Amino acid sequence: MKQTKIILNEKDMPRQWYNVLPDLPEPLAPPLDPETKQPIAPEKLAAIFPMSLIEQEMSDKRWVDIPEPLLEIYTLYRPSPLVRAWRLEQAIGSKAKIYYKDESVSPAGSHKPNTAVAQAYYNKMEGVKRLSTETGAGQWGTALSFACKMFDMDCTVYMVRCSYDQKPYRGIIIRTYGAEVFPSPSDRTKVGRQVLEKDPQSGGSLGLAISEAVEDAASNADTKYALGSVLNHVILHQTITGLEVKKQLEMIQEQPDVLVGCVGGGSNFGGLVMPYVPDKLEGKNIRFVAAEPQACPTLTKGHFIYDYGDMARQTPLIKMYTLGHGYFPPPIHSGGLRYHGEAPIVSHVAKHGLVEARAYFQNEIFDAARLFMQTEGFLPAPETAHAIKATIDVAREAEPGQVIVFLYSGHGLLDLSSYDAYLQGRLKDQAFSEEEIRQCLAECPTI
Amino acid sequence: MKQTKIILNEKDMPRQWYNVLPDLPEPLAPPLDPETKQPIAPEKLAAIFPMSLIEQEMSDKRWVDIPEPLLEIYTLYRPSPLVRAWRLEQAIGSKAKIYYKDESVSPAGSHKPNTAVAQAYYNKMEGVKRLSTETGAGQWGTALSFACKMFDMDCTVYMVRCSYDQKPYRGIIIRTYGAEVFPSPSDRTKVGRQVLEKDPQSGGSLGLAISEAVEDAASNADTKYALGSVLNHVILHQTITGLEVKKQLEMIQEQPDVLVGCVGGGSNFGGLVMPYVPDKLEGKNIRFVAAEPQACPTLTKGHFIYDYGDMARQTPLIKMYTLGHGYFPPPIHSGGLRYHGEAPIVSHVAKHGLVEARAYFQNEIFDAARLFMQTEGFLPAPETAHAIKATIDVAREAEPGQVIVFLYSGHGLLDLSSYDAYLQGRLKDQAFSEEEIRQCLAECPTI
Repeated sequence: MKQTKIILNEKDMPRQWYNVLPDLPEPLAPPLDPETKQPIAPEKLAAIFPMSLIEQEMSDKRWVDIPEPLLEIYTLYRPSPLVRAWRLEQAIGSKAKIYYKDESVSPAGSHKPNTAVAQAYYNKMEGVKRLSTETGAGQWGTALSFACKMFDMDCTVYMVRCSYDQKPYRGIIIRTYGAEVFPSPSDRTKVGRQVLEKDPQSGGSLGLAISEAVEDAASNADTKYALGSVLNHVILHQTITGLEVKKQLEMIQEQPDVLVGCVGGGSNFGGLVMPYVPDKLEGKNIRFVAAEPQACPTLTKGHFIYDYGDMARQTPLIKMYTLGHGYFPPPIHSGGLRYHGEAPIVSHVAKHGLVEARAYFQNEIFDAARLFMQTEGFLPAPETAHAIKATIDVAREAEPGQVIVFLYSGHGLLDLSSYDAYLQGRLKDQAFSEEEIRQCLAECPTI
Repeated sequence: MKQTKIILNEKDMPRQWYNVLPDLPEPLAPPLDPETKQPIAPEKLAAIFPMSLIEQEMSDKRWVDIPEPLLEIYTLYRPSPLVRAWRLEQAIGSKAKIYYKDESVSPAGSHKPNTAVAQAYYNKMEGVKRLSTETGAGQWGTALSFACKMFDMDCTVYMVRCSYDQKPYRGIIIRTYGAEVFPSPSDRTKVGRQVLEKDPQSGGSLGLAISEAVEDAASNADTKYALGSVLNHVILHQTITGLEVKKQLEMIQEQPDVLVGCVGGGSNFGGLVMPYVPDKLEGKNIRFVAAEPQACPTLTKGHFIYDYGDMARQTPLIKMYTLGHGYFPPPIHSGGLRYHGEAPIVSHVAKHGLVEARAYFQNEIFDAARLFMQTEGFLPAPETAHAIKATIDVAREAEPGQVIVFLYSGHGLLDLSSYDAYLQGRLKDQAFSEEEIRQCLAECPTI
């Protein structure tokens, strides 16, 4: 019988994360204080992040030990399987071998807990009692509420109101984990109240929810803030996936030719490919393919400049591919990919020519998702469907025997209303507007 | 680091199912023709079932080979993990060891595909083009639509209308697999049209949906019917779970002291415990604990008699624990456990004193489900929560070092509205009515 799943034993699970910072072609541009335009001092971040994570954010250590209590939580769902997609290969007539790294097996149903449990742990170690965060589609809020419960911490989630109303199931999961979730704008923060005063019916935005969560953390001594993507320490924690893939491919004496992931903030893609950056820089022929929505084409159409991480201009300035912090993508169903920017680490390796980016429309990614489900059985998240679509395209062009690995970042069981819209032909293939992006980029600070 | 997951290699997956029929303490009472009250002839079942499954239904072969193409579909998600619930043990102060067999990892999210793919395969081999079935809560309809797609067959699902309206996500999954799903009563069958004529707003019932699916199969030459529980061949296919548990416990040199499962029709419980029946009959001290709802207490309050399998009195008479085919349980959230009867095989071993049954109210099983989620991370189906509750009770009474294994039959990601009702204190602890059961039992045929 053909082998389908490559399973790593728990005892062989990586015991360290890989930090790509010391191996980058040149040093990463530092985050800047928006007022002084100078590199931001670590202490300035301490109001909202614990020192251990701030250190990880700027660390030049190549390997970071994963603490034992955290490994114990990881083993609730890790190592995750690497799966040969035999039936998908057959359906598309692929001569390449397709594998997927299945991160949907986590309690939250996505790769997000890999960093959520790490962030909860380090905060707990520094005496933090509660974490605050924002969530758009709900994946990150679910992951952080799971993580906080594992370490007996409180958790407050500000969920963009329009998602809160449209996706009630997410709120229920978050509450069942014991966390509290509020639609944003809320009356719990100054910034929330200001918005509500102007517009009591406001549907909110991710930028506003970030502002509420940051204000909550900054104004409560026992509370810190947690972010689910973009930051260096998030990519660091996510490298557990790429490191496992390395071991799993070794088990079957394979080398990857192509690594594929979808990109929003960049954490799942970054986690998969960063452990392969040294190989690539040493000359190994490995392609990194990033799949993004046409509606939010950060890597394919953005500029590599300093910009704010949020719409409300509260964050430090970070150098990244961006469509401009004012860019508001059309309301596509892949909520996790509707971010104007891109993780600095991912942007950096992309700028150095290590990443091929592809942008897709909604209907073609749902076509790919349905094909995956009808061959491999499992229902992917719309975000993940971008990686599937890119994988299918790459496989069709590939040489016989090539090895393609994509990151299956999450399941779509809480995205079924999107599938309904797709099946009923109600999905719009909205792309970006060149003019809007030009305008948004013009509003970025000049450094 | 402590081992959490016991993983069986694909190459060690069982290659045969175990048929308990030849090992039962006495022969199983045969199904009877309701008109003649004589054992039903296999040919009479051939209108709706393929001969290979009818043979399995009555087979005296102890081991049945699992065909190779079916093993290939199983490996999309099997072998499933056996997981040590360390954190749950700690939370309840258990001195016993608790393991759960995780069947939620299947594409449909439950144990149901284990028999769905087998039934699709055998029908396909006999030239059947389409399978029809009914579904209540939607688990079985999801599993069969997945299975049919794997073997390129058509699939028609009659879904009880009130569930169809309340759980739209189930219908979307079924359609995304490429199956068709109709609310029952539908205008596609004679029986459906009759009901609609009397009551165009009818919410339907499982019994009626069965009648529609059977009529569809009986009146179309290329179509057969598939049932997700109760029947002997269903339990046969489900023994893959218990056989894997045996191998997984051997890997860690353990023996089970208690096996726990929830019971509706009996398929997940039967699949787990049947492979241990010979051990128990040989004198090994293994307890089989079945958990059911107080609202539908088939094993704890039913009678072991001949009764119809459906409300509409269309099926053969089968000898089983039953509350009477006319029994209509209160509308609890564990739709999969709202069946008036119990698989004949499970009933038979229960009658011979091999099963301890326990009945639970809704709020206590959701308490258990939440505790599981807040310790082990994963969200269980309400049905599965019955097994968790029983496991917790058994663990609290157990001797130190005892080994308890429960079957984690499915996840609850499509049952979140039930969790919402629970969190908001809206769940009713409805029990059976002694008087109603007495009346329903009085309407059973006298054999």
